[in-house]
Amino acid sequence: MKILTLLGSSRREGNTEYLVHQIMDGVQHTELFLGDYKLDPIIDERHSEKGFSPSADDYEWVLEQLLAHDIIIFATPVYWFGMSAQMKIFFDRWSQYLRDERFNMKDSLREKQAYVVTAGGSNPHITALPLIQQFGHIFDFVGMTYTDYVIANAVKPGEIKSDLLALEKAKQWNAHFKTLT
Amino acid sequence: MKILTLLGSSRREGNTEYLVHQIMDGVQHTELFLGDYKLDPIIDERHSEKGFSPSADDYEWVLEQLLAHDIIIFATPVYWFGMSAQMKIFFDRWSQYLRDERFNMKDSLREKQAYVVTAGGSNPHITALPLIQQFGHIFDFVGMTYTDYVIANAVKPGEIKSDLLALEKAKQWNAHFKTLT
Amino acid sequence: MKILTLLGSSRREGNTEYLVHQIMDGVQHTELFLGDYKLDPIIDERHSEKGFSPSADDYEWVLEQLLAHDIIIFATPVYWFGMSAQMKIFFDRWSQYLRDERFNMKDSLREKQAYVVTAGGSNPHITALPLIQQFGHIFDFVGMTYTDYVIANAVKPGEIKSDLLALEKAKQWNAHFKTLT
Amino acid sequence: MKILTLLGSSRREGNTEYLVHQIMDGVQHTELFLGDYKLDPIIDERHSEKGFSPSADDYEWVLEQLLAHDIIIFATPVYWFGMSAQMKIFFDRWSQYLRDERFNMKDSLREKQAYVVTAGGSNPHITALPLIQQFGHIFDFVGMTYTDYVIANAVKPGEIKSDLLALEKAKQWNAHFKTLT
Repeated sequence: MKILTLLGSSRREGNTEYLVHQIMDGVQHTELFLGDYKLDPIIDERHSEKGFSPSADDYEWVLEQLLAHDIIIFATPVYWFGMSAQMKIFFDRWSQYLRDERFNMKDSLREKQAYVVTAGGSNPHITALPLIQQFGHIFDFVGMTYTDYVIANAVKPGEIKSDLLALEKAKQWNAHFKTLT
Repeated sequence: MKILTLLGSSRREGNTEYLVHQIMDGVQHTELFLGDYKLDPIIDERHSEKGFSPSADDYEWVLEQLLAHDIIIFATPVYWFGMSAQMKIFFDRWSQYLRDERFNMKDSLREKQAYVVTAGGSNPHITALPLIQQFGHIFDFVGMTYTDYVIANAVKPGEIKSDLLALEKAKQWNAHFKTLT
Repeated sequence: MKILTLLGSSRREGNTEYLVHQIMDGVQHTELFLGDYKLDPIIDERHSEKGFSPSADDYEWVLEQLLAHDIIIFATPVYWFGMSAQMKIFFDRWSQYLRDERFNMKDSLREKQAYVVTAGGSNPHITALPLIQQFGHIFDFVGMTYTDYVIANAVKPGEIKSDLLALEKAKQWNAHFKTLT
Repeated sequence: MKILTLLGSSRREGNTEYLVHQIMDGVQHTELFLGDYKLDPIIDERHSEKGFSPSADDYEWVLEQLLAHDIIIFATPVYWFGMSAQMKIFFDRWSQYLRDERFNMKDSLREKQAYVVTAGGSNPHITALPLIQQFGHIFDFVGMTYTDYVIANAVKPGEIKSDLLALEKAKQWNAHFKTLT
């Protein structure tokens, strides 16, 4: 089982990333920080005659990484009670590539397991639930398995180290992933 | 009462825009199509010593428009069960400007009324509810009044014309807005 | 198409019932007021050896009515951000009867269309959304079609008459149901 | 700090109860099994002239227990993606007693901390979220603090023992409660 972590934060070394690194400690995997790549927002041309125009960015390379792994850890801070715009850009472009015959996205996604890691403030165990549900609808739509999620209560740098339950969950996922790779 | 429509779609003349135009028919207002402006995703520097770096884009001009109006119509298609990345970029940057003393965002937002207009498929009256709830958390956080929302069932160009209930709601909002301007 | 309205309010002639009557005006249908029947809360014996004990109440008769209709209008006030206990008692007992071979609930429910009518206060268009989602999960689980729902903003007697959008939706459903019966 | 557990299951010794007992192991507290008491569903008479009629049941005694404690653990299985009817009956009657001057419910509830413990199947970490949100709205409405919740994945007797994360959360709550009593 090949594991990919997709980091959607806008800065490195934040709470979400710390938590992902705990989860992945000693586990072989690929890490992609979305902010390292040029990813253009979608221009919706589903309904135009000529279809989507190619975009001179890194999207196809990132998508190939996604498709080449079996387990995907989607990691995003809670920004304004949703995923980061960086990660949303990534999902929005799925509309373009689901109909691109060079990729076999539909069949490929159905085989994958999804995990969600998120961290934020403002009572995130309640207020991040719409985000958790949004991921649920996304994974349902493409047939991915929504294996689990973790919501950490952390805003300031390092606060994640005080969320003992989130860290415990990280430890258990870590033990599980070690059995898979 | 000054009214602003913020269009977050990635293409012009879609179903969401059609619905907004019905709502605004004959009503004096300002319309901004977010895609017409250069809006950079946030680079979160809330916790760095020097704070946020200025961004050479159109964000501050768009923000000034927001702050200069009393009623804001947030209009976005349902993309992947959430708002468009274009609109999310707009909200994410609030984190930067809420702490910028040149703008008095906090006090200003508390005086405003928010409406949400969205259109999508895949059973949107259920699957867009996390998006409606996310807007609820956003408006709660900044103290805006969440006056109303409409979810239209429309994906293909023109389908909005068959969603009679959404059009009826548009008509009633239209009558209300006409009394205000 | 045979239509059944299931009224879960604890009192007659409330806002929810008024709205249902507008929806059904001139439409042939069966109306059941759950409060008129003795319906015992479930005693969960799914996991006991002898299974469920028969209950000396009216449940089976009410269930037969449900199964004998094609379109079910579930009508409940929003009490404490959920359905009334009276209606919840009705659903909880499904766990008992789904495994009762005298009824063919599973196959029968899959053929049915569900509508939800609810009325309440405290910003119900946002705060009743978990209830709308709960119905979504229920209908998904048994394979019923969740055709539509209406949330009315009404607490005091008669307030429903001021919710023009809810009344408009009632009118449109009414026109639709008239074409079916 | 005085702690009360309110068990809303319809049978004893289920998964929810097991989890509550782990949480309370060695912690001084009061336990109430709602099914042991006669609790009548509400007959809504908020809007009748004479107001609510007294009910010859055990409700007032149970309510007094609630008001006499500082921390309340609301424990219910997930039945049909919501709380049990037994527990819903308990909440619905709040509408009656919030206006009963013999009790000082409003002020009293504002001082309390609420925890929610629930267990169920059908992917409960997603499908029980509307229930978690419903509790959020309830606690918001009366001003209780929603300290935390746990959703366990367990349907058959004893399955709770395999949900290691739920058990870990129980252990951490247990350690916390031991510091309070």
